Amino acid sequence: MNFPPKLVENAIEEISKLPGIGKKTALRLVLHLLRQEESSTDNLTDALKDLRTGVKYCDTCHIISDTSDCTCRTVKRNLTTICVVEDTPDVLAIENTAQYRGLYHVLGGVISPIEGIGPADVNIDSLINRIKSSEPKIEEVILALNPTMEGDTTAFYITRKLKEYGVKITSIARGIPIGGELEYADEVTLGRSIMTRTTYEQ
Amino acid sequence: MNFPPKLVENAIEEISKLPGIGKKTALRLVLHLLRQEESSTDNLTDALKDLRTGVKYCDTCHIISDTSDCTCRTVKRNLTTICVVEDTPDVLAIENTAQYRGLYHVLGGVISPIEGIGPADVNIDSLINRIKSSEPKIEEVILALNPTMEGDTTAFYITRKLKEYGVKITSIARGIPIGGELEYADEVTLGRSIMTRTTYEQ
Repeated sequence: MNFPPKLVENAIEEISKLPGIGKKTALRLVLHLLRQEESSTDNLTDALKDLRTGVKYCDTCHIISDTSDCTCRTVKRNLTTICVVEDTPDVLAIENTAQYRGLYHVLGGVISPIEGIGPADVNIDSLINRIKSSEPKIEEVILALNPTMEGDTTAFYITRKLKEYGVKITSIARGIPIGGELEYADEVTLGRSIMTRTTYEQ
Repeated sequence: MNFPPKLVENAIEEISKLPGIGKKTALRLVLHLLRQEESSTDNLTDALKDLRTGVKYCDTCHIISDTSDCTCRTVKRNLTTICVVEDTPDVLAIENTAQYRGLYHVLGGVISPIEGIGPADVNIDSLINRIKSSEPKIEEVILALNPTMEGDTTAFYITRKLKEYGVKITSIARGIPIGGELEYADEVTLGRSIMTRTTYEQ
């Protein structure tokens, strides 16, 4: 018995190449698409095709963008601050806070000796070039990296590299999350939140 | 700031229409595709398009098939036995056991009064027609439905409907799974496995 049919197997094969999707999930998605109108599959494939052909990475800030005018060239934002993040979802997360109006720089990864990712594999050189040649001058670089060993290593490396350019370097605050409870916080976080306590304005 | 770009938003929108995939997972998949070669997106979209245009449901057994010659018309299988299942993945699961060489009938669902699914909404009438008009005559109908309230209701309904056609109706065995432990089995399963115990051949 030729089951599942070749076309179904092909589709399962291709879908299960996506991260976090195995063969069983792929089969479920295939059956879902087969139950839907043909147009819903068309919409999906068109959206994916347009995505892949239309979206590019900006040469300057490495953000994804579907226009040649990346947001890093807009004049509507604060052009003297760069927020350095590991990857695109982080940009989205920070944008959603509506608390930041400066520029971004997407590293596309963090330094990880264990995984063989060195400083040259992430967009650190282009960050330095950007700071060197920026007009107006960059005044502050905010490091918004994940609080992991790799994130800290990368932050340390960037800090050292940027020393000579006289730019202020800051890090997003580490501490107890809003809504979090002290009782259940880990010692490192709680310890750091005491060390880096902030002063109430009186 | 136009972020995420429109094309990315479209793609996320379409991907997150798939069952079990939310916006965050969709974004992760989008970023994965953007990091890969353009050809990998092409392969995926081609496979999905071919799937949706090429794969049809068989009119007789309701299995998905990419040829007009469905397996239910093949002579290489036992044509006097029909195994009734809820959905296509069940066919795949049974085929993988290599223990069954008869025909299938996919109900496309089970009777569920709570969800408003009646006998007319699943492929029971076409099963009856199939048994009425089959050549050679169907001798056995195996009900391989899930051991849920809905599965049992459907099995009961089918059994009653098929009474007049003098066909043998069986159910797949319920009991302790191979590798399972009696100690941890629920009482209903263990109770049923004692009631329906099988005799050792001596």
